[in-house]
Amino acid sequence: MHYFSSNFKLGILGGGQLGKMLLYPCRKWDIQTLVLDPSEVAPARLAAHEFHRGDLLDFDTVYNFGKQVHVLTIEIEHVNIEALLKLQREGVKVYPQPEALQTIGNKSIQKDHYAAHGIPTAPYQNFDSTSAAKAQTSSFPVVWKSAQGGYDGKGVKIIKSLADFDELPDVPCLVEAQIEFEKELAVIVASSTTGERMSYPVVAMDFHPEANQVEYVICPANITDQIAEEARTLAEKVAESLGVTGLLAVELFLGKDNKLYVNEVAPRPHNSGHYSLEASYTDQYEQHIRAILGLPLGNTESKVAAVMVNLVGDENHTGPVYYKGLEEAMKLKGVCPHIYGKSETKPFRKMGHITIIHPKIDTARKMAKHVKETLSVISK
Amino acid sequence: MHYFSSNFKLGILGGGQLGKMLLYPCRKWDIQTLVLDPSEVAPARLAAHEFHRGDLLDFDTVYNFGKQVHVLTIEIEHVNIEALLKLQREGVKVYPQPEALQTIGNKSIQKDHYAAHGIPTAPYQNFDSTSAAKAQTSSFPVVWKSAQGGYDGKGVKIIKSLADFDELPDVPCLVEAQIEFEKELAVIVASSTTGERMSYPVVAMDFHPEANQVEYVICPANITDQIAEEARTLAEKVAESLGVTGLLAVELFLGKDNKLYVNEVAPRPHNSGHYSLEASYTDQYEQHIRAILGLPLGNTESKVAAVMVNLVGDENHTGPVYYKGLEEAMKLKGVCPHIYGKSETKPFRKMGHITIIHPKIDTARKMAKHVKETLSVISK
Repeated sequence: MHYFSSNFKLGILGGGQLGKMLLYPCRKWDIQTLVLDPSEVAPARLAAHEFHRGDLLDFDTVYNFGKQVHVLTIEIEHVNIEALLKLQREGVKVYPQPEALQTIGNKSIQKDHYAAHGIPTAPYQNFDSTSAAKAQTSSFPVVWKSAQGGYDGKGVKIIKSLADFDELPDVPCLVEAQIEFEKELAVIVASSTTGERMSYPVVAMDFHPEANQVEYVICPANITDQIAEEARTLAEKVAESLGVTGLLAVELFLGKDNKLYVNEVAPRPHNSGHYSLEASYTDQYEQHIRAILGLPLGNTESKVAAVMVNLVGDENHTGPVYYKGLEEAMKLKGVCPHIYGKSETKPFRKMGHITIIHPKIDTARKMAKHVKETLSVISK
Repeated sequence: MHYFSSNFKLGILGGGQLGKMLLYPCRKWDIQTLVLDPSEVAPARLAAHEFHRGDLLDFDTVYNFGKQVHVLTIEIEHVNIEALLKLQREGVKVYPQPEALQTIGNKSIQKDHYAAHGIPTAPYQNFDSTSAAKAQTSSFPVVWKSAQGGYDGKGVKIIKSLADFDELPDVPCLVEAQIEFEKELAVIVASSTTGERMSYPVVAMDFHPEANQVEYVICPANITDQIAEEARTLAEKVAESLGVTGLLAVELFLGKDNKLYVNEVAPRPHNSGHYSLEASYTDQYEQHIRAILGLPLGNTESKVAAVMVNLVGDENHTGPVYYKGLEEAMKLKGVCPHIYGKSETKPFRKMGHITIIHPKIDTARKMAKHVKETLSVISK
């Protein structure tokens, strides 16, 4: 099949910022795209050949959308997986595979998968309900995770005493040991339909303490070559074990014991890979498209060092967005803003990001700090 | 004025590949864009907020389009300049300035401008008609140029004998000495509304002998640091003298006498700057948008070396396009294709380009040769 300026059609479930950026290589290569999203003002509405408005969790909506394309992918995992399974049976190529989405979509099943494949992860126990977990937990702190529906820090809670359980929904869940870590790392792995598999360099993620969102992504991470190699090998093993085609972002803890533990995964382009648009020979969005179409994978190495700063809504502002200080921040050479196109800001809403590129990572870090101090996302 | 996710509107006259690539930073920054182009299937139709179909040379069409935007720019010089002058008088910001388009749009006036500003260029003489030129030309070879309407090798002819004049239209023209050159070079200069001005590194252009189109653009050019500095300084002087806001691409001859001569200029993103999308800290399209909106200019230096190969239609094929060998060429790491989205190929039609990036320019050149040999643009 030829993809370029042809009748080939790619479907994308989800039209947020990841969907918007997935459209970049599609425009560059003139690949026809259809986007499905519930929001009339989805960032990926513009630049898609067709935009369909609809519920990503509704069987008929996803199925009918998928029947119109040759290859179907996602930018968000919370989609109707039954519809994907049916589409796959009927010959639509669905990447990532719905079976992998099922494994990843339930944290208890995901943890069992790691255990079965000898993939290091924090010790855990699955429970049918939060109340059952409470009844069997005696040492603290531990981490409670809802089996389903968690993302961006939702569905995850650090439990310091039995009373903390009472604030949680009584749902199937797991309780895991809290890893004492030096750093949080991430590795993006690309796996092609052809069997080709490549990983990106290891990045370090600095989290914002309150919002539980990534504040800085740093590439390359300040770790030894040996740890970097171990992390990439481990991430590739995770991707292989899950049988995911396309991207898999693997979040890892580097423990104080100097060991690596898989934390969570996302089978799609990921916040930790935004930096690649400017810094990598092949950015993650293009790589995902290459992988799911069976095109040769591109070089994952970096041209320059990079730090990515998320632009999230100021916690005290809700309303029409204004990027205060953006033009000031752009005076620094190497400051590359991305504005997702959401007209309304809310506390901690992901509104954009800035990549700072420089030959030297230390300089990029200093610049990132300056950018962070200069810029705020407020309402007009 | 704030541009990001705001009511600000940018208009672009022309919806070809340069217009399409001008939309990339506009999508990235969520800047509202309106595109005017005569073709229903213009490459820049998709991803613009509004697409208007219309004649770029028609006064009313250009004027009415321009009245809807705050800033108006071009991706092609052949537009109705009277309409631009009226829009400018009525408060629309028009960049490049219509006065500069008038100077550049007539090659005789352009040459007179260089002479008046001490800018080195091939010795020339202006004529009211080709027949007058014929009557006064006695030594050969010389170069005949139509005063108006020439681009991409059209309107230019090397004259080896008096008989060659007879094949030409009898129009206002100039005759200039044929510079014996070592290399053809180009420098892109960005000039902001704020007065900030920056040039890109010097590139070398290798031309296809038959099509008179650029075959390879090589960055950095294989020239001495001194010549590179002279070329950038000269190009900046040209931009300043013309008073152009936005990009100005300056094509230069490096003579066998080791001197530089300005050949032609284009007040917009240019084929010789395509490489910047992958190789530069700030690509030419983003830089043009920064310049005309008065945003701080970005770093013009390169992250890596690059060679750009134009993908032009095979001379023996006309019809629905097929990019033969493209997937094979993509196996080389660092091969970055751009497909403009023209459904029909024609002999020598610009259908796309490929940028090859590598830390070493010599390796990039070898890869470019391989790509050129692997790929052809044919009809299905």
